[in-house]
Amino acid sequence: MTSAERVAVVGTGLIGTSIALAAIRAGDAVRAFDVDRATLERAAERSGLTPTDGLEECVRGATLVFICTPIPSLGALAAAALAAAHEAVVTDVGSVKAHVLAEVEAVANPEHLARFVGGHPMGGSERSGPDRASPAVVDGIVWVLSATPRTEEDAIARMEAWVARVGASPVRMDADRHDRLVAMVSHLPQVASTALMGLAATEEAGEPEILLLAAGGFRDLTRLAASSPHLWSDILLANREAIARAIDLYVSRLARIREMVLADRPDEVEAAFAAAKQARLALTAKPQVKSGVAVILVPVPDRPGVLADVTVTLGEAAVNIEDLQIVHSPEGGRGTVHLTVAADAADEAERVLRERWFDPLRLA
Amino acid sequence: MTSAERVAVVGTGLIGTSIALAAIRAGDAVRAFDVDRATLERAAERSGLTPTDGLEECVRGATLVFICTPIPSLGALAAAALAAAHEAVVTDVGSVKAHVLAEVEAVANPEHLARFVGGHPMGGSERSGPDRASPAVVDGIVWVLSATPRTEEDAIARMEAWVARVGASPVRMDADRHDRLVAMVSHLPQVASTALMGLAATEEAGEPEILLLAAGGFRDLTRLAASSPHLWSDILLANREAIARAIDLYVSRLARIREMVLADRPDEVEAAFAAAKQARLALTAKPQVKSGVAVILVPVPDRPGVLADVTVTLGEAAVNIEDLQIVHSPEGGRGTVHLTVAADAADEAERVLRERWFDPLRLA
Repeated sequence: MTSAERVAVVGTGLIGTSIALAAIRAGDAVRAFDVDRATLERAAERSGLTPTDGLEECVRGATLVFICTPIPSLGALAAAALAAAHEAVVTDVGSVKAHVLAEVEAVANPEHLARFVGGHPMGGSERSGPDRASPAVVDGIVWVLSATPRTEEDAIARMEAWVARVGASPVRMDADRHDRLVAMVSHLPQVASTALMGLAATEEAGEPEILLLAAGGFRDLTRLAASSPHLWSDILLANREAIARAIDLYVSRLARIREMVLADRPDEVEAAFAAAKQARLALTAKPQVKSGVAVILVPVPDRPGVLADVTVTLGEAAVNIEDLQIVHSPEGGRGTVHLTVAADAADEAERVLRERWFDPLRLA
Repeated sequence: MTSAERVAVVGTGLIGTSIALAAIRAGDAVRAFDVDRATLERAAERSGLTPTDGLEECVRGATLVFICTPIPSLGALAAAALAAAHEAVVTDVGSVKAHVLAEVEAVANPEHLARFVGGHPMGGSERSGPDRASPAVVDGIVWVLSATPRTEEDAIARMEAWVARVGASPVRMDADRHDRLVAMVSHLPQVASTALMGLAATEEAGEPEILLLAAGGFRDLTRLAASSPHLWSDILLANREAIARAIDLYVSRLARIREMVLADRPDEVEAAFAAAKQARLALTAKPQVKSGVAVILVPVPDRPGVLADVTVTLGEAAVNIEDLQIVHSPEGGRGTVHLTVAADAADEAERVLRERWFDPLRLA
């Protein structure tokens, strides 16, 4: 356990306020600033952080500074914080890293870069506002840390210790590699979803009945399309090259499937689908971005009250349900409740469900 | 209310057995046949249908025949049923229609085609086996009916009446149009999901940590990739041209987004994302493929027992929960339970939830 820090948070939206709450829970003192006075006051009420009147007052004397503003302002604010807080390690929470690091390196006093570490806490950053904040936002999440060439080991180690102390999992990763990987598994899914929804909407103009035929699978694939356009514009433009490459790889894979289908080669289509199916089943059995949780599958009959039976059984055993999904096979249906519970509550959850004659299956 | 029919079901997997159950519930007599004797016996135990020893015995004297086998055998079996059951209207349940109609037209005695109507009950057909069957599979679903040029109006009208009598919504649709629309909102999502999962799996070979960074959005987009490769190979190859066109349109939309991003045009990216967001929000407010249901959004605090509170409240009011989802904002989070309930139970659901101090919002 490392000792308490003096934490400064710049930008008290959902993620900034959640970081403040997690820090306070861990025993740190927290000051914060937000250009929107009302947002700052809500954050202070909600979390017990100390509001301040400007960046300088906020970060002066801090040992850790978190810049939690939109991507375009991260670099300049990080540089200002490095200059104003002489002892502090400064980090940001942007969804892209190379772009942010390049901006900080361009703007900051080079000597200050020893104390800068890029960061990406991978959870919940796309909800908005201090009212939705919770220290649980950081519980068990992967928190990527990306150093600049000038960052000193001591600064990274301090950030790592703090991230672990508040309950998240620090992962060191080169900024370019981070951006390449999230382009594939976070940014590309967003683009794929938006493109599919946009296409269906265009078709709908000429075929109003098309969405009548859109079942659960279409809804799954287009859920992300409801995300914030402004936020995603910032993210995509800040990770241009990696996203273009991810789209290229995706398009060539779609083209290969198109080719096999048009050429009427069932064995190839089936092999491509079988490989993806196997990978998806392996993913289901893997820990989510949130570590420390377990997924339990519970087959349920289709009758009134069965969901109440599952949830009350767990509630009475004081097992908190982190997530619950009634999982349909592709194209609709019902039958299996997917429960996500804390890993250390999973044995108890299985036991009490068995006692109620359910047949839970815990994924590894 | 039309009078009871003598129903024959060929193929007693999930959808065939569900149709048998719905027919029996509606007062029809049901005979069935399946080449797999064990499957047929399970279906008979589960539903009370009368098993038979072959296609001819099954369909002889029937007034309605449902061919519920895999796509490649639908045409030949429909033709055989038309020949063996002289009075019957014969239909199929395949996910593609033009291909099936062409096969029936190629194989059947042309005079029999007056009694053939292609069909696609749009719900649950991708689960498998009689054990998962339920009459609820057809409740409120859209059931597309596609005529051949030789089909007589009387045959379509009889099918329509039966579909409505068992609780589904008949929709007449030209086979080519059906195939074009499902290519876009059902087959393309499947291809998009499989391609994304296949791509991530390939990348994972060189970057084992990539899936550590895959959050909820990636899981949403790849859930369909776990579908049956064999089934989907059949569907895609039977709808080749429409699928190739849908992939082309999708790829060109992806290419446009790639272009805007690489050219650093934030206004265009934001406009494309805003259009898709608006369409997705409109979709949420639309009836699902299942008509007769209502969706109610219930904001919930993040504490143990809250889900039990919602489900017990509805259970005590005898409101059956058709579906429940804890909806996360993009990239994770929590906060809103989406409940799907029968439309005629929605008022009661809202009332009892309000009484328990929840703040339900019913979607139109």
